[in-house]
Amino acid sequence: MVGISDVARAAGVSKATASRALSGAGYVSTTTRARVLAAADELGYVPSTSAVSLATGRTQNIGVVMPYVNRWFFAEVLEGIQRALLDRGLDLTLYDARPGSPGRERIFDDFLARKRFDGLIAVGVEPRHDEIDRLLSIGRPVVTVVGPDSPSSLVEIDDDAAARRATDHLLTLGHTQIAFLGGTPGEHWARVERRRLAGYEAAMTEAGVSDAIRHVRCVASIPGGYEASVDLLTESSARVTGLVAVCDEVAIGAIVAARQLGIAVPARLSIVGFDDHEYAEMFGLTTLRQNPREQGFAAVELLVKHLEDPTREPERIRMPARMVVRGSTAAPPSAPDPAGAVPERSLHASE
Amino acid sequence: MVGISDVARAAGVSKATASRALSGAGYVSTTTRARVLAAADELGYVPSTSAVSLATGRTQNIGVVMPYVNRWFFAEVLEGIQRALLDRGLDLTLYDARPGSPGRERIFDDFLARKRFDGLIAVGVEPRHDEIDRLLSIGRPVVTVVGPDSPSSLVEIDDDAAARRATDHLLTLGHTQIAFLGGTPGEHWARVERRRLAGYEAAMTEAGVSDAIRHVRCVASIPGGYEASVDLLTESSARVTGLVAVCDEVAIGAIVAARQLGIAVPARLSIVGFDDHEYAEMFGLTTLRQNPREQGFAAVELLVKHLEDPTREPERIRMPARMVVRGSTAAPPSAPDPAGAVPERSLHASE
Repeated sequence: MVGISDVARAAGVSKATASRALSGAGYVSTTTRARVLAAADELGYVPSTSAVSLATGRTQNIGVVMPYVNRWFFAEVLEGIQRALLDRGLDLTLYDARPGSPGRERIFDDFLARKRFDGLIAVGVEPRHDEIDRLLSIGRPVVTVVGPDSPSSLVEIDDDAAARRATDHLLTLGHTQIAFLGGTPGEHWARVERRRLAGYEAAMTEAGVSDAIRHVRCVASIPGGYEASVDLLTESSARVTGLVAVCDEVAIGAIVAARQLGIAVPARLSIVGFDDHEYAEMFGLTTLRQNPREQGFAAVELLVKHLEDPTREPERIRMPARMVVRGSTAAPPSAPDPAGAVPERSLHASE
Repeated sequence: MVGISDVARAAGVSKATASRALSGAGYVSTTTRARVLAAADELGYVPSTSAVSLATGRTQNIGVVMPYVNRWFFAEVLEGIQRALLDRGLDLTLYDARPGSPGRERIFDDFLARKRFDGLIAVGVEPRHDEIDRLLSIGRPVVTVVGPDSPSSLVEIDDDAAARRATDHLLTLGHTQIAFLGGTPGEHWARVERRRLAGYEAAMTEAGVSDAIRHVRCVASIPGGYEASVDLLTESSARVTGLVAVCDEVAIGAIVAARQLGIAVPARLSIVGFDDHEYAEMFGLTTLRQNPREQGFAAVELLVKHLEDPTREPERIRMPARMVVRGSTAAPPSAPDPAGAVPERSLHASE
């Protein structure tokens, strides 16, 4: 059987270098790696990662738990994590823990208990108390991204301050009838949504318009924002001129709903979101920009520090978020239509 | 150190049953699994999956290679794969192989060579010839979903026939000026796009309107469809009344562009897509519905068959696709506007 010494000899490098090149762990130049891999290929060398794991106690694998992969924020964080792990020669095992799904139980019961990973990154998982206990009991470092308040390290933006800024933007333009759209029924993202709602409420209260506080619950997706907005905007009593959406997907759903109802944005209705989603520019959406990909990078960096020093204290990393003003926000209409929020068709052309 | 025999004794089951319950491989009833895991927890038993791997030669892990996780089709296939693997107690290691990225080289050079998986599912990966050779040389079964023509097993829809049906739908309504939107520059999805384009061209040719064949290239995303459509629809020479989009994201981008340009859909422009994307209903999009989640299930089922019988011949599984007619398609305008595709603003209200 071909051993690693044979590969090292054929490639003209030390056994340690050959090992690093083949395991992907530790630095090796691209040309050296290519030479070692070519030699390994030629000799038919099959590295046994199981043997490597037994010897080092490391799996070279990071577990990632997230409730969705098909929403923009999660997909972007996942990409950031994936690339940062790739740079370090680490594999990524994905655990898709949708709240309430039967799979979620299996993940917490079986998969995490098998500990086929050196550390774990939990993204947007709003665990129940028993799940938090299990996560902490696995004895591997855990970093959460937009997670719950927990004793593990955390990467997040200051959601409260960001929501205040978004609301202040509308208040400064002269709006007072501002509603908040968000807050999926159920567990998912609950803390983020609560903090954004709290920031909106604080800004409204400080501006002396707490009477106008209005929270409309909706699923955090484009169709969710669309449905909630159709309901809100066709209400005859609704005099809303501004919307703060919990994320850009909800904000985009609101823009689509307004367009279909013939409500000009921003002439009749201003809309602000959070994220700077890939569609935000196309819809001219004013938003609080965050960079979920960099949050993924930061989570990996933090996890690696915990792997290198298991006694390291948990820390909280605050990532930046900044206002990007586009065409979806403007001053409110000076003379509100007394018939309610839905204007005449003739206004359509002003869109 | 606590061994598996201790766990088996405490749980009152055989060592083989305890092993199955802890490894997740093979059938164990839910109650037995719970009992074994509780015993393992109580005794502080740490299963060494590395030792299991060495003994069985299996990693209980499936590699999944895909170029994107943040596009609807890929995210849905991934969810299907994830759930099907979960049901079988298998882990999923994700390799995100975006074409042209430096990561892609590392994946093909290093990660796949380490073979930390029992089998591989490649989704929408349009590999170069040297990459195909490497995939086949790893000596693990490979199943591709919407992949290239290759000697491995394949799960797909009949893209050619589906595109004919979409085009025939517009032809039957009376359209002749029908353009095809799609075909990302570069490698990704090239075969699917080629086959859909071929179906469109065949239908146009059979209907005797091959002169009207027009292929507009665009990135397969909502912003991609939006940008290409803005260009196409503002061209003064464009007399297009129908669009066949390579996927629903492109079709939705076209609808958004048409609305912004004041072109009523379907009164002035009919649009048909492929997928039945989660936003399709909201945009009233007529489309060829496929179920990518079921394609993920089917890929796992097929891969497991190959794992159980390594001599099994590769096979091609055709998944169903069916036409869903919504509000984005209708008969073409009887008297086309001689000024071109962009109508007067007054037509806006008919949208």
